[in-house]
Amino acid sequence: MSLSDMCNTDEAVEIRHILTRVGDKWSLLVISLLGNGPRRFTELRREIDSISQRMLTLTLRQLERDGLVQRTVYPIVPPKVEYRLTPLGSTLLETIQSLVHWTVEHRAEIHAARAAYDARAEAVTAPAD
Amino acid sequence: MSLSDMCNTDEAVEIRHILTRVGDKWSLLVISLLGNGPRRFTELRREIDSISQRMLTLTLRQLERDGLVQRTVYPIVPPKVEYRLTPLGSTLLETIQSLVHWTVEHRAEIHAARAAYDARAEAVTAPAD
Repeated sequence: MSLSDMCNTDEAVEIRHILTRVGDKWSLLVISLLGNGPRRFTELRREIDSISQRMLTLTLRQLERDGLVQRTVYPIVPPKVEYRLTPLGSTLLETIQSLVHWTVEHRAEIHAARAAYDARAEAVTAPAD
Repeated sequence: MSLSDMCNTDEAVEIRHILTRVGDKWSLLVISLLGNGPRRFTELRREIDSISQRMLTLTLRQLERDGLVQRTVYPIVPPKVEYRLTPLGSTLLETIQSLVHWTVEHRAEIHAARAAYDARAEAVTAPAD
């Protein structure tokens, strides 16, 4: 199935919905971190310092529903809950790491491009002296 | 720079912002299509059938500002405006195609995982007979 087919078929909405989910920055970060091994909720929250408890809960629940993350509750006291990638989630890991890596590598170029764009826009809209 | 560094430094916000941009479904689709060669606005709009004129305009402007897409105006009558990937945009293409490809390949598995999750959730919340 080619991308142009994808853009014009009935499946398009579903596929775009999945793209929105896996492209979400919090999902990308959670999947990347779980690529290093299972994590507890509090560990994930510490590793992604600016994520709220609510947003991390929501992100994990959606990833679990999509079959990308498995939640395991160990019946001990106090209860221990662990999250890990499913086999399906692992197939997504490499692609996501490549996207995160690209972003880290090219952030300076993007930053420079934005500054140049904004300077041009300002030159166009500035009142003539 | 590792991902865990990325999550806890001052650059984290900027990097997450870029991830949000490149992870956006419309950006993903526009970059993928421009991977096949330059396109005019109306061609892109036809190829992504459910995108609104406003959203396509906004997406292209953001991609241009980020230095990923180049906009060329040909001074002819009627004026012709073409969009193409910049060299920086081309470096992102492979990763994005891999993400789109993953989504297309695994949509059935995700669909099945969601149905199973929802059935489990329903079983838990259904009133006892």
